[in-house]
Amino acid sequence: MDAVTVAEPRSKGNVEPLVRLAAPDMATVDALILDRMQSQVPVIPLLAEHLISAGGKRLRPLLTLAAARASGATGEITAPVKLAAAVEFIHTATLLHDDVVDASDLRRGKVAAHLIWGAPSSVLVGDFLFARAFELMVETGQMRALGILARASSVISEGEVLQLTRAHDLNLDQETYLRIISAKTAELFAAAAEAGAVGAGADETAVEALRAYGLNLGLAFQLADDALDYGGTSEVLGKNAGDDFREGKVTMPLLLAAARTRGREDAFWDRTINQGQRTEDDFRRARELVFGTGAVNATLDTAYEYADAAKAALSALPASDWREALEQLADFAVSRAA
Amino acid sequence: MDAVTVAEPRSKGNVEPLVRLAAPDMATVDALILDRMQSQVPVIPLLAEHLISAGGKRLRPLLTLAAARASGATGEITAPVKLAAAVEFIHTATLLHDDVVDASDLRRGKVAAHLIWGAPSSVLVGDFLFARAFELMVETGQMRALGILARASSVISEGEVLQLTRAHDLNLDQETYLRIISAKTAELFAAAAEAGAVGAGADETAVEALRAYGLNLGLAFQLADDALDYGGTSEVLGKNAGDDFREGKVTMPLLLAAARTRGREDAFWDRTINQGQRTEDDFRRARELVFGTGAVNATLDTAYEYADAAKAALSALPASDWREALEQLADFAVSRAA
Repeated sequence: MDAVTVAEPRSKGNVEPLVRLAAPDMATVDALILDRMQSQVPVIPLLAEHLISAGGKRLRPLLTLAAARASGATGEITAPVKLAAAVEFIHTATLLHDDVVDASDLRRGKVAAHLIWGAPSSVLVGDFLFARAFELMVETGQMRALGILARASSVISEGEVLQLTRAHDLNLDQETYLRIISAKTAELFAAAAEAGAVGAGADETAVEALRAYGLNLGLAFQLADDALDYGGTSEVLGKNAGDDFREGKVTMPLLLAAARTRGREDAFWDRTINQGQRTEDDFRRARELVFGTGAVNATLDTAYEYADAAKAALSALPASDWREALEQLADFAVSRAA
Repeated sequence: MDAVTVAEPRSKGNVEPLVRLAAPDMATVDALILDRMQSQVPVIPLLAEHLISAGGKRLRPLLTLAAARASGATGEITAPVKLAAAVEFIHTATLLHDDVVDASDLRRGKVAAHLIWGAPSSVLVGDFLFARAFELMVETGQMRALGILARASSVISEGEVLQLTRAHDLNLDQETYLRIISAKTAELFAAAAEAGAVGAGADETAVEALRAYGLNLGLAFQLADDALDYGGTSEVLGKNAGDDFREGKVTMPLLLAAARTRGREDAFWDRTINQGQRTEDDFRRARELVFGTGAVNATLDTAYEYADAAKAALSALPASDWREALEQLADFAVSRAA
């Protein structure tokens, strides 16, 4: 008789150990961000601060700092600090542009900037922050790190355009969907970690390991976000639950639910996604189908696979508090949605 | 009796000598532009090509190449060629975003991209080209040139935001107006020339001279453009004449005309600019006032002063066909509007 295998309960992970470890470095990054978003044109710091002060965990610059420390950097880490601020500026710029593109009304729990200052200001302040990001990178003198973040920036916008043109396509295959979120989300996580390691002068093994960690963490994070959009509350999300559905945006939970109800609910999906006719009742119905078919759990299972891959990548690094904190972060990225 | 001084007729200048000299280098830049605007996401090259193939003279990358050659570079100029393509990408990105911000309907004589592919695609493809510009710069390995263009990019967006918030303000003083066009237009001319010189390894005297040339040329160019908006035809302009007035945008001809008709036409300017109530008849009336008060000629006189300053800056360079072609360009930048 075979031994009964009992699945170990999965760790929920935690973001706090990383936040605590990185607090001193992060204070330097925050001061730098505040300093570099200033301008003699008053609306620029006003608009930037609206978004940046809304904060959240600032996962991406955290990753840059953690990558530098986990690959052995001690003492002052001037280059990674500047790169971390640059990463946050790039991220903020893409959020500003995304909210214009999607006509979103909430971001980080606050009214989206374009609804207060207008879409033109959001576009232009996004451009300003993006340019300032490159000025910060130039100061580090680290051309390789600059190349990593320049490339990530073009990949992100490619991913956004791909999403824009394919977002309402129920025939999107899972591979294309993963390509979209890899470009629009995971690439910046990967580049943030990679640039931090490069900026700290890490060896190639550590650089590759941290890039792989970032990429897999980013995929886990985005899939969990997609699941949350059908299950979370706007307080947890910092945006309205159901926004993806309301915008007719096809994500993995929806793709799976549509596939699992084929022949039964085709008219519903066709009307709400392909033809774009949606009511609030339709969101409730979509939510039932997404949960009822197990599409949310399947999405989270995939997210956990990426979280495991992220943790596995870390094994190339020496054991440290930082490495452990990054492991905890990988589980947390998914469990917050579970 | 004093001798009668007869003003020498002013040279009209010419852009063709520069275009001819730069033709071989420009062919390399064009091929590079075409290559680097490619993407697996089909709408990106389509949208980029719509704008880039509409062409015009590509003054800014021409400046980068000319700066490299005028400061003595011979043979292949790999870095300046890449910097020139990057400059054109930065310029194209700002055009795409500007047209969204201003809701313009014509650009380079063609329907504006956002009216064909939508504002979201224009915003995101602009971001893509901007990121690609930095990837090209990274390839040159020239951190100083990269810093020059990164800084120019943040100054440009600051200028755009300043214009956005002050554009409908009849009390704008001439100094603030010059600050706006210096940032939004002249800075990229200056940076394009400076980066070309730096990329070619020019000495500091040449670098400074070429930056000063670019800055003054850019101011002359923008002032002539502002004058053309009241006098030119849409064929010459590549956009509709009167667009500035229709958008309620305050430029130097309008500022001068309003100042020169104070007490007489205050109600007209207040209604059309401050209150934003404009008809086609109002544009005809504005045009009459702008010409009748000599505001167009005064704007062109100021433009010629900057053109002269641009030419004077070139005296620091050794005499050459390239230097002469740049001198000709300075006069042409204004005379095309006279």
